[in-house]
Amino acid sequence: MSSIVSPKGYNFSVASAGFGKPGRKDIALVISKTPAVAAAMFTTNSFCAAPVQKGKQLIEKFGLFRGILINSGNANACTGAEGLANCQAAMEMVAKEFDLAAHEVLPASTGVIGNQFNMQLWKDALPELVSTYGKCTAQDFAAAIMTTDRFSKIVSEQVLIEGKTVTLTGIAKGAGMICPNMATMLSALLCDADIDPVLWNELVKKAVSITFNRASVDGDTSTNDTIYALANGASGVKVTPSNFEKLFEAVSNILGQLAYMLVQDGEGATKVMEIKVHGAISDEEAEIAARTIGHSPLVKTAMFGEDANWGRIIAALGRSGCQYTPENVILHVCGFELFRNGQPCMDVTRDGDDPKLVAALKERDILIEISLGSGPGTYTLLASDLTLDYVKLNADYRS
Amino acid sequence: MSSIVSPKGYNFSVASAGFGKPGRKDIALVISKTPAVAAAMFTTNSFCAAPVQKGKQLIEKFGLFRGILINSGNANACTGAEGLANCQAAMEMVAKEFDLAAHEVLPASTGVIGNQFNMQLWKDALPELVSTYGKCTAQDFAAAIMTTDRFSKIVSEQVLIEGKTVTLTGIAKGAGMICPNMATMLSALLCDADIDPVLWNELVKKAVSITFNRASVDGDTSTNDTIYALANGASGVKVTPSNFEKLFEAVSNILGQLAYMLVQDGEGATKVMEIKVHGAISDEEAEIAARTIGHSPLVKTAMFGEDANWGRIIAALGRSGCQYTPENVILHVCGFELFRNGQPCMDVTRDGDDPKLVAALKERDILIEISLGSGPGTYTLLASDLTLDYVKLNADYRS
Repeated sequence: MSSIVSPKGYNFSVASAGFGKPGRKDIALVISKTPAVAAAMFTTNSFCAAPVQKGKQLIEKFGLFRGILINSGNANACTGAEGLANCQAAMEMVAKEFDLAAHEVLPASTGVIGNQFNMQLWKDALPELVSTYGKCTAQDFAAAIMTTDRFSKIVSEQVLIEGKTVTLTGIAKGAGMICPNMATMLSALLCDADIDPVLWNELVKKAVSITFNRASVDGDTSTNDTIYALANGASGVKVTPSNFEKLFEAVSNILGQLAYMLVQDGEGATKVMEIKVHGAISDEEAEIAARTIGHSPLVKTAMFGEDANWGRIIAALGRSGCQYTPENVILHVCGFELFRNGQPCMDVTRDGDDPKLVAALKERDILIEISLGSGPGTYTLLASDLTLDYVKLNADYRS
Repeated sequence: MSSIVSPKGYNFSVASAGFGKPGRKDIALVISKTPAVAAAMFTTNSFCAAPVQKGKQLIEKFGLFRGILINSGNANACTGAEGLANCQAAMEMVAKEFDLAAHEVLPASTGVIGNQFNMQLWKDALPELVSTYGKCTAQDFAAAIMTTDRFSKIVSEQVLIEGKTVTLTGIAKGAGMICPNMATMLSALLCDADIDPVLWNELVKKAVSITFNRASVDGDTSTNDTIYALANGASGVKVTPSNFEKLFEAVSNILGQLAYMLVQDGEGATKVMEIKVHGAISDEEAEIAARTIGHSPLVKTAMFGEDANWGRIIAALGRSGCQYTPENVILHVCGFELFRNGQPCMDVTRDGDDPKLVAALKERDILIEISLGSGPGTYTLLASDLTLDYVKLNADYRS
């Protein structure tokens, strides 16, 4: 991973309001010195959180933005009219301190669903937010939006376009209720390119569809998934339809690395399964297969157990509803061919497993490849395993 | 639960072949003294096991059967032509010992997927199977088909039809890869009524659709789900379209109790969630909502944690794809109204939960009721929680 370089023209600020664990930073603010174009994608969950509703309104109504305000510790979801009013009030309070209009700041929240904000906590946090402004880094921002994450997720990249440097920094948070669906978990992407908003939107959406939208921890799409991507032009580099490819690659790289980190840091996760399905009659059919396997509790626990119990992979495929001819299915796990022509390829009773396969399953990255036939459809999903720590964390977590 | 009474005209036999744990009974046989009509339903998984393929062929081709042969410890699934030949050979060996034709016996298997049988084990078990014949009970049969089950599942009931007694005994096994879908896990239903096979089939299918098909442990539909229901007429009671209602009730009662036991004994389970969705635009839409909630790892772990974290239930509903107006949704958990008009109904931060709700969540049975609006659609699903023991068992299990 590259070291973190910040795009030009952004300042960061964080504060501890006490929404969640006392003393933890739980408010993160980034402000662009100049107005930025914004691309945004939101959860497809029909109970979208107050900040998602508010963010959607702003994106529809306004073209340029100055900042992103994120809190952790309270999702402000399923909170009705009171939640919407609290979201608006928080934005107004913060914007005022920075001489901005409330509609210039894009809001996002993460944490427990169904609790109303204690607005006094917002008020009391304002002085810290002001005093840390410009003294914080993107890393501080990334740390302040964490909930059950074990590490912060931040990636930056620089690209040369027309001989000049464009810098991008992407930030995301996990770690549970992660199954982005035409949207993402919370993520902020900051860029200093000068780019048309329509082109920026197109580019970000395409990159999200092949990165965040192909990652899953537990199959539970959140009420709060949001990505805001700002481009403020501070680099002075004009990106156009004729030279945007490098920027697209950089955005895809960044979001791809963040998606991997989300799965790697999935609640309790010890493994990253890369489930590659090909030969399906369509990409959609391949996706059905990959998602059913990636969400199967029996596959996920077998991976945690480092057990080549491939029958569970085939059984999950078999119940997926995906269209294929069972006799044509070929399964490889970590490069070992385990199933072909409807029957096992090697003795994989536990004691009889190939020692090389046993060793490969002890690695973090587990490649599961399924050929369904000779069709053109492919899909790749990153998915985590299901572990004792996942259950412990989620049986205990509500703070 | 009623005590176990056996329908007339059935004899049982069990043996230890050693397919799984040494010394455990793992072959179960029931033979009807006279030919019986059979109803059968099988898994919808496209990789159906050898005994499922064989069972389907027999049911299509023949009308009367004499017995059911089940083994545990090896699912004989994903075993190709060799697996089919082994299934046939086992049936022939066993049938011969009891002076039956192989096609008179219906086969089923459960256990690990993807291992070929050691046929010598079948051969060596035959003397025990013969010597225990008629000396075993239905309870012994139920115990011999267990895999990871903590207790055996058997229910019997007697009904008076036209003044005479009909007896039924239902047997099932869990405990993982349980999400019957137009079929069931392994189950045998024995009855001594004299009934037309078409009526018997109709009756059993209808009962399965409202019992086994509404139960889920982990959402993973197995490769081996099978129910065989025999009716041998030994009671001398003729059941006809004009008097079958009592028999239908008894079958539904038995399968309903077995379905509850399957969920109660789901791998590692400590809770039975009854998820009742009503007011949907159709039963199908209600089912989508109930299944998404019942399969959500976050809902299931919250239940294990006895935590009224209802936001996860609403979030799961929100991602389900079910059609409804979010503002109309009302959620009750254990009789407590928690969510209405898009917002919380009471303070359910962990420390502030109503003590009566906290106490209710400590019970085994958790009622989750969701009203989606004023539509006619309803669906009820039984689902277990997701626990540390589920993960332990399935990270370790392959024997």
